[in-house]
Amino acid sequence: MLALTVRPGDQGSSTLREMAEPHPDVGSLLIQSLAVGLCGTDSEIINGEYGEAPPSEDFLVLGHENLGRVLEAPSGSGLSVGDLVVGIVRRPDPEPCPACAAGEWDMCRNGRYTEHGIRGLHGFARERWRTEPDAVVRLSPSLGRLGVLLEPTTIVAKAWEQVERIGKRAFWQPGVVAVTGAGPVGLLAALLGVQRGLSVHVFDRVTAGPKPDLVRSLGATYHPDSLPDSGLRADVLMECTGVPEVVVEAMTNGAPDAIVCLTGVSGVGSRLPLDVGALNREAVLGNKVIFGSVNANRRHYEQAIRALAAADRDWLSRLITRTVPLHRYPEAFARQPDDVKVVLDLEAAGP
Amino acid sequence: MLALTVRPGDQGSSTLREMAEPHPDVGSLLIQSLAVGLCGTDSEIINGEYGEAPPSEDFLVLGHENLGRVLEAPSGSGLSVGDLVVGIVRRPDPEPCPACAAGEWDMCRNGRYTEHGIRGLHGFARERWRTEPDAVVRLSPSLGRLGVLLEPTTIVAKAWEQVERIGKRAFWQPGVVAVTGAGPVGLLAALLGVQRGLSVHVFDRVTAGPKPDLVRSLGATYHPDSLPDSGLRADVLMECTGVPEVVVEAMTNGAPDAIVCLTGVSGVGSRLPLDVGALNREAVLGNKVIFGSVNANRRHYEQAIRALAAADRDWLSRLITRTVPLHRYPEAFARQPDDVKVVLDLEAAGP
Repeated sequence: MLALTVRPGDQGSSTLREMAEPHPDVGSLLIQSLAVGLCGTDSEIINGEYGEAPPSEDFLVLGHENLGRVLEAPSGSGLSVGDLVVGIVRRPDPEPCPACAAGEWDMCRNGRYTEHGIRGLHGFARERWRTEPDAVVRLSPSLGRLGVLLEPTTIVAKAWEQVERIGKRAFWQPGVVAVTGAGPVGLLAALLGVQRGLSVHVFDRVTAGPKPDLVRSLGATYHPDSLPDSGLRADVLMECTGVPEVVVEAMTNGAPDAIVCLTGVSGVGSRLPLDVGALNREAVLGNKVIFGSVNANRRHYEQAIRALAAADRDWLSRLITRTVPLHRYPEAFARQPDDVKVVLDLEAAGP
Repeated sequence: MLALTVRPGDQGSSTLREMAEPHPDVGSLLIQSLAVGLCGTDSEIINGEYGEAPPSEDFLVLGHENLGRVLEAPSGSGLSVGDLVVGIVRRPDPEPCPACAAGEWDMCRNGRYTEHGIRGLHGFARERWRTEPDAVVRLSPSLGRLGVLLEPTTIVAKAWEQVERIGKRAFWQPGVVAVTGAGPVGLLAALLGVQRGLSVHVFDRVTAGPKPDLVRSLGATYHPDSLPDSGLRADVLMECTGVPEVVVEAMTNGAPDAIVCLTGVSGVGSRLPLDVGALNREAVLGNKVIFGSVNANRRHYEQAIRALAAADRDWLSRLITRTVPLHRYPEAFARQPDDVKVVLDLEAAGP
């Protein structure tokens, strides 16, 4: 069968290759890949900046945002042939840390987790894959191809859960949300903010393309200016760019008691002249929280399923701005100005 | 009666002055001041960098860390003549924000709170003061003069409460605590960490003076090196210096899922070249939390009373390294190398 693979660390090594069918020892559940969504982590892996092959292999199958259909399921698994499923990206180590043992592998404390398509486990950009039934979640058939948006939705489901749990440190009655960055994570973070009845403001540089309308269709406010220029003082700030200057703006422009959630994975190595004393003083005197959130556990997958079920299907479908057949995958990685979410179509995987 | 006052914003304006006895309209409870502890905020006010006089007055009575004895109490107040009490520093505005209305004036959202000895309310460095019974907490007589340590203990009680509440965002099983700065707040933060059964490490530059022994007497570990040099990866980091370089070290040297509590009020205006991308990336991929904590509400005063009751009296008494009579107050503000907590003695307030 066909698979999109890279040699991790080796820029330009991406290729479609034939690989063996997944061995039944890997898992009792056989899944047909339908679609794989692409994000910045995939670009980092393609560029040789990130990623790790499975032990004793020299390549990594790409793809962590995924949608599949059950081809074989063991009886008693609660899954049936034809079910739409999404594979959970991160898996705990066989000798789990206490967080992983508690089912919170997103909070892994010893760093020995693995991640499909990223770190030590093959990804989903292959025609078929196997796992055990507890490593997938089942979607409503009515979600159809939009199910490929589940994994990025789990990221913001976790982020929102942690915002709300952290908010319980004290009196907490949030009203206004600022989201920096109108990419897929920012837009989904805005969706979940609107679903919570909050007043959501999304900041991005672009004035053209689908993003402003996607924001307004949610009932949120789109700002092509910067957060400081807007004068907005939000109670919750969802930072979804990872751009250092924007990260600092999010850290320093909240309301008293603001909670700032960092979700963007930045590049490193460039330094900004930062008044750390002012940042610290403002954090202390204003009871500010700044926290990072990564990945998601099963609870967040279930939350994301509910969030997508409650969302407008047309709005979700507009997030997927391009769908590219697997055999033309280089087109998918060639960034276009109006891209929001680009998806690889694996249903007709052959050329 | 005598009072230690400043004209806020006017460096060198501190003076002992005669002022009128507090008017019964101010409150039904009459308190004799026994002691006032001094901290960095008092120094900022003395230096004209901070502080605000009560409305329609041109001076501010200094002193927020306090200990007093009840001289007159209304019947039914639960207080009796002779009771040891501590006045709560921050008071909500008569038209409170929702947080203040919920009793969480430490989380005030509209900035209209007042603070005795700091902002809009006279402090406790005067022979007698009045308030209402709900604005004080009563101490066990056995605590005696150590009660002046209550207010700084409330600061760390709130900080620890928020650490623990924020920890509930996910799996949380902290073991190791790093405290940066072995001043009074750092040492009290270490005390409360030890009281929680955690392994506490305190970092400060000094190798002489009382701090190393105070740390070791707690059963904690003293480190005269820096946090990065130590290689320690703590689950909880209590930053108690406000020094920008140390703040950055605390932000970037925690274990996965670390919670960093900022308690030090920094000076502003100097910039550090900071790799914000690396800071952000580490926060995201490591699920790190960085938060600021200021002030305390009544619940934290009650928690602090329990923490002091459980502490070794001799250890607490060693925190108070100098006690200076009110009429010699300039000596109290002349920093000495072995100072931990310096206290003004008001019991014999006259010269």
